[in-house]
Amino acid sequence: MSPAKRLRARMAETGLVHIMAAHSPLSAILAEEAGFDGLWASGFELSALYGLPDMSLISMTQHLDMLRAIAGRTTLPIVADIDTGYGNAINVIHAVGEYERAGTSAVVIEDKTFPKVTSLVADGRQELVRIEEFQGKIEAAITTRRNPDFLVIARTEALIAGHGEAEALHRARAYVEAGADMILIHSKQKDPSEIESFSRAWTGSVPLAIVPNAYPDLDAKRVKTLRNVRMMIYGNYGIRAAATAMQETFRRIIADGGVQNVHKDILPVEQIFRLQNMYEVKAAEARFLR
Amino acid sequence: MSPAKRLRARMAETGLVHIMAAHSPLSAILAEEAGFDGLWASGFELSALYGLPDMSLISMTQHLDMLRAIAGRTTLPIVADIDTGYGNAINVIHAVGEYERAGTSAVVIEDKTFPKVTSLVADGRQELVRIEEFQGKIEAAITTRRNPDFLVIARTEALIAGHGEAEALHRARAYVEAGADMILIHSKQKDPSEIESFSRAWTGSVPLAIVPNAYPDLDAKRVKTLRNVRMMIYGNYGIRAAATAMQETFRRIIADGGVQNVHKDILPVEQIFRLQNMYEVKAAEARFLR
Amino acid sequence: MSPAKRLRARMAETGLVHIMAAHSPLSAILAEEAGFDGLWASGFELSALYGLPDMSLISMTQHLDMLRAIAGRTTLPIVADIDTGYGNAINVIHAVGEYERAGTSAVVIEDKTFPKVTSLVADGRQELVRIEEFQGKIEAAITTRRNPDFLVIARTEALIAGHGEAEALHRARAYVEAGADMILIHSKQKDPSEIESFSRAWTGSVPLAIVPNAYPDLDAKRVKTLRNVRMMIYGNYGIRAAATAMQETFRRIIADGGVQNVHKDILPVEQIFRLQNMYEVKAAEARFLR
Amino acid sequence: MSPAKRLRARMAETGLVHIMAAHSPLSAILAEEAGFDGLWASGFELSALYGLPDMSLISMTQHLDMLRAIAGRTTLPIVADIDTGYGNAINVIHAVGEYERAGTSAVVIEDKTFPKVTSLVADGRQELVRIEEFQGKIEAAITTRRNPDFLVIARTEALIAGHGEAEALHRARAYVEAGADMILIHSKQKDPSEIESFSRAWTGSVPLAIVPNAYPDLDAKRVKTLRNVRMMIYGNYGIRAAATAMQETFRRIIADGGVQNVHKDILPVEQIFRLQNMYEVKAAEARFLR
Repeated sequence: MSPAKRLRARMAETGLVHIMAAHSPLSAILAEEAGFDGLWASGFELSALYGLPDMSLISMTQHLDMLRAIAGRTTLPIVADIDTGYGNAINVIHAVGEYERAGTSAVVIEDKTFPKVTSLVADGRQELVRIEEFQGKIEAAITTRRNPDFLVIARTEALIAGHGEAEALHRARAYVEAGADMILIHSKQKDPSEIESFSRAWTGSVPLAIVPNAYPDLDAKRVKTLRNVRMMIYGNYGIRAAATAMQETFRRIIADGGVQNVHKDILPVEQIFRLQNMYEVKAAEARFLR
Repeated sequence: MSPAKRLRARMAETGLVHIMAAHSPLSAILAEEAGFDGLWASGFELSALYGLPDMSLISMTQHLDMLRAIAGRTTLPIVADIDTGYGNAINVIHAVGEYERAGTSAVVIEDKTFPKVTSLVADGRQELVRIEEFQGKIEAAITTRRNPDFLVIARTEALIAGHGEAEALHRARAYVEAGADMILIHSKQKDPSEIESFSRAWTGSVPLAIVPNAYPDLDAKRVKTLRNVRMMIYGNYGIRAAATAMQETFRRIIADGGVQNVHKDILPVEQIFRLQNMYEVKAAEARFLR
Repeated sequence: MSPAKRLRARMAETGLVHIMAAHSPLSAILAEEAGFDGLWASGFELSALYGLPDMSLISMTQHLDMLRAIAGRTTLPIVADIDTGYGNAINVIHAVGEYERAGTSAVVIEDKTFPKVTSLVADGRQELVRIEEFQGKIEAAITTRRNPDFLVIARTEALIAGHGEAEALHRARAYVEAGADMILIHSKQKDPSEIESFSRAWTGSVPLAIVPNAYPDLDAKRVKTLRNVRMMIYGNYGIRAAATAMQETFRRIIADGGVQNVHKDILPVEQIFRLQNMYEVKAAEARFLR
Repeated sequence: MSPAKRLRARMAETGLVHIMAAHSPLSAILAEEAGFDGLWASGFELSALYGLPDMSLISMTQHLDMLRAIAGRTTLPIVADIDTGYGNAINVIHAVGEYERAGTSAVVIEDKTFPKVTSLVADGRQELVRIEEFQGKIEAAITTRRNPDFLVIARTEALIAGHGEAEALHRARAYVEAGADMILIHSKQKDPSEIESFSRAWTGSVPLAIVPNAYPDLDAKRVKTLRNVRMMIYGNYGIRAAATAMQETFRRIIADGGVQNVHKDILPVEQIFRLQNMYEVKAAEARFLR
């Protein structure tokens, strides 16, 4: 059973899958051990690992390289964040071929223009592409995939761009018409009301995915009362946790003039060995080195 | 002033530089902010990021790619861990050319055979190469470097391999004869006595570097009482801290069924933006996007 | 003297530099041996090596990886073809930093929209970006470079897009105003008249570069009669020559049922050894392997 | 049907498959068009493309990157040259996992020590690993593969190292015992007598592969008279043909002071467009760009 088929089966079985962002095999292994259903190969987390803003600076090659490394060390299905698809529908065709061969189970494509501009910029250049243009991208992705279980998820930024629920619903329906397997709906409000309202209004034939970063109160219990949401993506928690701990640990080592204190408060090196598969490798050495 | 020259100047000025292992630009940026003098481009940390044992599985290409990304986002000098030099003296020549062009200030080459076998394996295959063979590698590295400030640091595993202090001193002197700029001396004992004894016995013309992972009690104050030690490398603290925090955060999200609690205990996303240089980019958008 | 400074010096000295497209270190070494003044790190040739159309499918990472390999095996200055700069001015800033660190001496940025659409498409979507937008990119590039000798070359596609000479001149002047060090002027006509006319009309303070692929009759002798042209880029000859020879050689091996005939008509393997630096390595083995 | 299964089926069907070395998607596409049965992802050709000697300098990452690009642009099965397996049996396990996931159908592992020393070096350090050590590598590879059709081909350098036919047969039998699916037998003599003699003497249960570079007279007709040979690998013809043509073309452009003559003797750019899939992309633009 392909990871893509397993992801679909899991959604059908549990009604809601929990997908944790991963920026490395290490974070992916930890997410698998914690019990998540899948991984979000997040552009934001990978950009942050590279110390770069999430603005189409990390190349598709860099993303694929990390993804393949992740796919080699976990059995979880991987949902790839491919932003706008790296350009137009031709770029989407190229990308979907590459991401599917790299071992992912799904791609999320968003309806922004390329390249992304920070939403922090005052003049609000959060432009969306025309609906027909984005439909062309979705159709291109659907036509390219080899495994029919591979999911093409259309993400609309209509709420983020301030176009309101009616436009978001209109776009979502158009994307489903073009073949999208799921709709990812996102909001920049601090509370989940926009998402909840959209979800209640959604009558489309495909389920929804959400990314409750800005509205952490939208927990699984509350999501289950909504109709249609089948996927929760946890967008930036691994990298934020990692940065928090490194910042504090580095600060203490400088303050202490050594590692005599911090070493007790972090995982012992033997736990890292375990996460590195060292004990399996030790067994392989015993078996195959002669 | 090249980063290599700055590293040498800093050693001369303070008598002891503190070098933190980095596995990514993000961890490098945090180390720079914390006040470290340089970065250790650690094979162990990068292997751990990739979920692989530190046994010559990560390729030189993968190491260089991460190093270049780090060099692009920090001003700190980088000391590269190149293990055994990826093979023989010919591989060392190729490697030193690549690492110097990638922006590092130093390489550490160790006198083990390639590929490394885990020190966990019972039969103790911690083999060292012959002294003359390793001298050939050091000379090859020295001959290859373009910038005379670029440091070639010879690491002897003689204590790790159980050959005792006399052999360690003998090897260290032979490596200095071949041109090594510094000697890295390592031990697998849990207390620093072997290192302290070696350091007191060392009468060579070049200074020493140490990696006090196994013997955390060897803090800077104690190191300063030793003669000759000019560089302390903190070997695996960033990745251990990161893994600790991700493990705990992921566990809580599963337990809580959402992010409603953890999001308060980790860096806010705005701090990640800062580490990603988002605010500089915002200024550049204002200046150059028209 | 940096390669960038050498390139500028060579232009000043000879009045016209000859830049050959390279898609690999091997082709770069052959171009250097043949006597070219520099290398064109061509997006078209690299795309062709990868069997992909030259439409923003090859990533910046793939281009940089090949460029660095080229820079490691030749002393010639490298002029990098960065298409539209991989997006907007922010992408240009990122790109210029990376290309300069990778060892290039110049970048050529063109005023098309991203991603490129084949000029073969009937509906003619050869859109140019607004002049002010492209000026922002040029200024961003100029501001980013560290070495003031690093050349920022602005390529206008105004003639290709059918906007005529007046618009081409207008744009070229605007780009010089924004800081461009040279103007690359290109045409899709089969004869050089457009280029010659533009060159005669050009009164700007910076010199011109041309790419005489479509108009092979524009040889060096004729170019020297034009005012202002200081750089001739030979755009796709290496890859076309290589493809021609491989096609014919493969056909013959199949026809002959073996290599008994072709092996006499291609370089002997010893010549490949030479191009691989094998004899230098042999000397290094004799010197450093013990 | 997986490419690996197709390769096995083709060997069974025709009795002898013809495998052409490829160093890029372009050369792979040309080999497919010429009618070869499969591709040899050659370490020698890729090293030569990079202008480096074939001495374990190209990393596994660089090889895999090119392989994946090749696999994305051809339907031919790929036989990967993995030299000694990048180290010991642990490296082989890592490598086989990566090469299988990258889309190859077979690996060839050779019984030399790592890293390779040029056979040009006078002192003849063409050392072979112990038989049991190499058996461990073969068993490790067999145990790691997921697809049972994936071929593990053991290459013995016993003749190259001057150990004679008896040792070569002894080693080959030991490798079959360890699970090898085929034996690659190689010689450095200029005539095929050693290969022919080995082949006649071979009574093992698996077929043979040969690489008739040094002995071009061993054509397919003659090979078919031998028992057991099922695979002919053409080792370095693409890169030699390409280098020959580029050398000549570059020479002429310099001599002519332009491209006015050479452009008639090489493939027109439209043929390169075809090899780049430009016309399919043009159709996709018409269908999906809106």
